[in-house]
Amino acid sequence: MTPPAAPAYRRLSVEERRSQLLEAALGLFAHRAPEDVSLDDVAEAAGVSRPLVYRYFPGGKQQLYEAALRSAADELQQCFDEARVGPLLPRLARALDRYLAFVDQHDAGFSALLQGGSVVETSRTTAIVDGVRRAAAEHILSHLGVTDPGLLLRMTVRMWITAVEAASLIWLDEDKRPPVDELRDWLVEQFVAVLSVTADRDPQTAALVRALADDV
Amino acid sequence: MTPPAAPAYRRLSVEERRSQLLEAALGLFAHRAPEDVSLDDVAEAAGVSRPLVYRYFPGGKQQLYEAALRSAADELQQCFDEARVGPLLPRLARALDRYLAFVDQHDAGFSALLQGGSVVETSRTTAIVDGVRRAAAEHILSHLGVTDPGLLLRMTVRMWITAVEAASLIWLDEDKRPPVDELRDWLVEQFVAVLSVTADRDPQTAALVRALADDV
Repeated sequence: MTPPAAPAYRRLSVEERRSQLLEAALGLFAHRAPEDVSLDDVAEAAGVSRPLVYRYFPGGKQQLYEAALRSAADELQQCFDEARVGPLLPRLARALDRYLAFVDQHDAGFSALLQGGSVVETSRTTAIVDGVRRAAAEHILSHLGVTDPGLLLRMTVRMWITAVEAASLIWLDEDKRPPVDELRDWLVEQFVAVLSVTADRDPQTAALVRALADDV
Repeated sequence: MTPPAAPAYRRLSVEERRSQLLEAALGLFAHRAPEDVSLDDVAEAAGVSRPLVYRYFPGGKQQLYEAALRSAADELQQCFDEARVGPLLPRLARALDRYLAFVDQHDAGFSALLQGGSVVETSRTTAIVDGVRRAAAEHILSHLGVTDPGLLLRMTVRMWITAVEAASLIWLDEDKRPPVDELRDWLVEQFVAVLSVTADRDPQTAALVRALADDV
């Protein structure tokens, strides 16, 4: 039996429509600063009517930006999902590969979304971005098998995450040099290096560094 | 001859008055988020009339915030001034001491001013903060005697500066632990460690690391 032909036009569910609009907005943010993206632009990019976009984002540009940031944050957090099997550093390298692919794909939109400093910056958007940083730190500590990280270890991990973020922004500014594979390996090496420095001051980190050295 | 007694009330110059008001504002930012500081609060803290504050900052809260940020940025940049004599790492340690003293003194105001993410954040304030970061990187490269830094060296220095900034914010959050001397030494050690990692990928950085090792 032949299945009935799909209708040429299908009414999207609320969730599907919302995703479609956010996808269009993220596409626009990749080439323009958030404050330069209007709801009309989103309507045009998504091929829908303006009133429809206004119905989904009655709060206007700010609401659209926050929703897009939240959607990007969710996508970013999925980069950190990594099975808890095999040696640790290759796991970190794989998570970095996914993260850098996200940065590469969203390009200028990544800077605009995560760097803040636009007129649409608010404490809510800062909280979303900080949530991603916190999630990244928790993922790393959990992969390291640490349930009760001390101050120096927590600081080390958070400082490295900030450095990775800075590296991504500079990388985009520098026409994506060095090549992404080199950047990823270099970031992993920096992680081991800063952990090793902390190890001299902190027994918990010292134990981790020994475990990493044996973990091949 | 006895000098004439100073008058009980002296009319301040425009520049002196402005400095007095910014000093009062910075004091308030140290305990409250910028968006919670009104011009009236500044008038009260400085012990002057409200119309006077409004005369100096007709642009209101946003203008006051930007002026305070610029004043703090100038003060911060002075932390980096360090004579080009003696071994390099102690120079870096002394600059960090001054920077951390600034962070310590301004406390919550430092987070509020430099972390951004408040409702008064704009691309102009971001540019001020980025200017401080850029100045810090230039100071470091100039002390290292590098006039034409390659990509990896520039990235390493900027990543370390971002990590130092993150460390300062966490340090304030963590009731100023670890002790400031330990934090300063640890940050210097991290600088050497990340440079050493980069040295394996970059001949320019490798030459610097060798010079640092001989520089005692």
